[in-house]
Amino acid sequence: MAKRIFSGGAEKASGNDGNTRTSITQFIPGTEFDAKMKRVTRCYMLKSRRPQQAASVQFFADYEKSVGNYIVDIDGNALLDVYMQISSMPLGYNHPAVLRALADPVNQIAPPGLSHATTMMCGSCSNENAFKTIFIWYAEKRRNGAPFTKEEMESCMTNQVPGTPRFSILSFQGAFHGRTLGSLSTTHSKYIHKMDIPAFDWPTASFPAYKYPLNENVRENRQEDERCLAQVDELLEKYKTEKRMPVAGVIVEPIQAEGGDNHASPEFFQELQRITKKHGAALLIDEVQTGGGPTGKMWCYEHFDLDSPPDLVTFSKKMQLGGYYHVESLRPKQSYRVFNTWMGDPGKVILLEAVLETIRKENLLHRVTTVGDYTLKQLTSLQDEFSTIMNSTRGRGTFIAFNCVSSELRDAVIKKLLSKGIQVGGCGTAAIRLRPALTFTEQHADIFLDALRSVLKQQRF
Amino acid sequence: MAKRIFSGGAEKASGNDGNTRTSITQFIPGTEFDAKMKRVTRCYMLKSRRPQQAASVQFFADYEKSVGNYIVDIDGNALLDVYMQISSMPLGYNHPAVLRALADPVNQIAPPGLSHATTMMCGSCSNENAFKTIFIWYAEKRRNGAPFTKEEMESCMTNQVPGTPRFSILSFQGAFHGRTLGSLSTTHSKYIHKMDIPAFDWPTASFPAYKYPLNENVRENRQEDERCLAQVDELLEKYKTEKRMPVAGVIVEPIQAEGGDNHASPEFFQELQRITKKHGAALLIDEVQTGGGPTGKMWCYEHFDLDSPPDLVTFSKKMQLGGYYHVESLRPKQSYRVFNTWMGDPGKVILLEAVLETIRKENLLHRVTTVGDYTLKQLTSLQDEFSTIMNSTRGRGTFIAFNCVSSELRDAVIKKLLSKGIQVGGCGTAAIRLRPALTFTEQHADIFLDALRSVLKQQRF
Repeated sequence: MAKRIFSGGAEKASGNDGNTRTSITQFIPGTEFDAKMKRVTRCYMLKSRRPQQAASVQFFADYEKSVGNYIVDIDGNALLDVYMQISSMPLGYNHPAVLRALADPVNQIAPPGLSHATTMMCGSCSNENAFKTIFIWYAEKRRNGAPFTKEEMESCMTNQVPGTPRFSILSFQGAFHGRTLGSLSTTHSKYIHKMDIPAFDWPTASFPAYKYPLNENVRENRQEDERCLAQVDELLEKYKTEKRMPVAGVIVEPIQAEGGDNHASPEFFQELQRITKKHGAALLIDEVQTGGGPTGKMWCYEHFDLDSPPDLVTFSKKMQLGGYYHVESLRPKQSYRVFNTWMGDPGKVILLEAVLETIRKENLLHRVTTVGDYTLKQLTSLQDEFSTIMNSTRGRGTFIAFNCVSSELRDAVIKKLLSKGIQVGGCGTAAIRLRPALTFTEQHADIFLDALRSVLKQQRF
Repeated sequence: MAKRIFSGGAEKASGNDGNTRTSITQFIPGTEFDAKMKRVTRCYMLKSRRPQQAASVQFFADYEKSVGNYIVDIDGNALLDVYMQISSMPLGYNHPAVLRALADPVNQIAPPGLSHATTMMCGSCSNENAFKTIFIWYAEKRRNGAPFTKEEMESCMTNQVPGTPRFSILSFQGAFHGRTLGSLSTTHSKYIHKMDIPAFDWPTASFPAYKYPLNENVRENRQEDERCLAQVDELLEKYKTEKRMPVAGVIVEPIQAEGGDNHASPEFFQELQRITKKHGAALLIDEVQTGGGPTGKMWCYEHFDLDSPPDLVTFSKKMQLGGYYHVESLRPKQSYRVFNTWMGDPGKVILLEAVLETIRKENLLHRVTTVGDYTLKQLTSLQDEFSTIMNSTRGRGTFIAFNCVSSELRDAVIKKLLSKGIQVGGCGTAAIRLRPALTFTEQHADIFLDALRSVLKQQRF
């Protein structure tokens, strides 16, 4: 397998992709790590065995045999390489000073129905490239099979219409989707992230702000869902007709993390998907914070029972490397439209593989669910006891948060917890959030809960 | 040292930075790699021992002692960590399934005068974050010490002025600076990179298009410099007064790579810096392709004899990880304004360190200069011999290119070279570019030159 890194054309089972040349060649054999790590890295396809951009394959290389200034092809021909993966291999192939790290493909965790995966470097650029994938798909739908016009090809070179279209991405107030200029245009959680940075004038809708406890506020919260969804519907219409800046995609977190651990109901997400589809836009679920198990499922949106899979799902953080999954219909026809020097990092796939193996072996998703339920129940009891201090306890799995009655009180509680040996995080205006490891147990939860109880007691008196 | 990862406040010699928490903790001890790699990674500062964002330090952790769900501080206190580096540590600290990779800081390669370094994931996000650093600096100059206004804090949350200013970055035709939405707005090399992707309407100036050979076209090329520089000056003026979208920074490659290996004279860059400074904008030199030695200097702009260092220099590719250097005056006052989950990758610093050690030990920059001069001279002879096929041979070090008389002929030459066992790259309309490893010798050059001669002969008859 390792011998035929580039052997996968569109029809071959090995499924390799010319786009990954530079990724794969970052790590080369003949080092101390090699013996332990002799497995093929195919990080660019976390699920599908079908390549994305076979058209950019030029040549099938054998990176195990390639040495120094020579790249060896699968037939054993050695070629003098004066191009060196677009200048990314300073010491040539298999220099002993550089290590190789290889891992098996990790096929088992792709969201159902999302057959394509592209790996990237971090969460921000995963969202950026997911946006690009959406824009390309949206433009191609409008183009309806027609080739690029001369005017399009020329105008895009200086960022002008029609080649550079005025498409937009709808996002939600309180959202956090990253910090590069495109993703930052959809981030609306804290002013310090956004101040002084130019942004696209894209639409922002309200995200539901629920009243807790949920079971006592069913009607109000349903109305809140409806208010926000009506806004989405209006904005999609307005940006198409009035603003002439049609919304090509909607990006949403399954739980708004940075913005304050704001939850919305499965019904909200189901209806959001219907509205998005009605307007011909793509639905992108940003699982950068929630993906990888903390909600008790590999992907948080699996809690929502959607009519069909979302069009794209982005990931990073717990997944150790960034990237996005998407449905078949969003695959760009031409190669090199979505590209990056490294296209993710094979080294990180080793980390991810170790993480996934442990999740499986130790049944950690089940543990997260059990420990999360326990913690949530205990926190709810504390909330009943200390209702003048804390409220709105909420969570899925161990992805749990509660609010303090003020931002000052929240900060005081965090500080006192720290003095008692507990590290938690703040988010939103007055929320405290838990983001424990997947290995967090009920015993750990008890230590945290005891410390919190003691802090809350001090706080009350 | 490794024990006090967070011990560096602004005044301490260890120079650690709270921003790097998540970077550092990606790699943790107790694994098979640990014994060999017991060196402290401080990839976030490639030169300076002064931290950038000491204000975001919350707490001084000892990541060697931290285990499982517990983070240990430098005083030996174990804290239960229910926050886990903003949810980025799925298996907690020091889980045996995860590796640690540590390396010494690599101080010796920072461009002279650029005292601050921030590491990032790739070239695109290095440029994006360099833009953000420029915008923040530009806005702060205008603000002149005043705090953010309420209007600014509110308006930026929905991407509106004044909090979200209409600042711009000037770039050059033919430039390539990356593919995320901000960096792509400054990329103008190929339509396939830009088609259908929304972009900022920022100014684009002409980059010099020289006549070769240079020594026979001195006057024309000087006029070409003047034409392009006058355009830059006009655009900077126009975008400030007419378009009300002032240029906060100018981004330029020292050699336009993707755009066709277009060179400009030292005088062009000297004058560009003066014009940029005159208009109060920052000069960002993008060394993503050229940095790390291929031009015979660590940074290509060192060939230009500038009046003072550029304000920012971005890097990636040969440097193995992305990032940017900048001068002291561009350091944001507040923390968290430029941030990323990982802020670069300590694992990559190991690669970089191995590369740098080898460059030093084998005196590779000198070799690049010698072999480059030799190759350039030989190519110039070939050009004289085959002047109906090739022209405009140019280069610094082994960063060499020549033009074919047509795009079709260029493609044919590349294909024939491949059949003779030589891999080169195309760029621009009709250029062939060499990007060999730093270990490329005169013997390798001869193999390439012999093959090229034989292809050119076939081509002529």
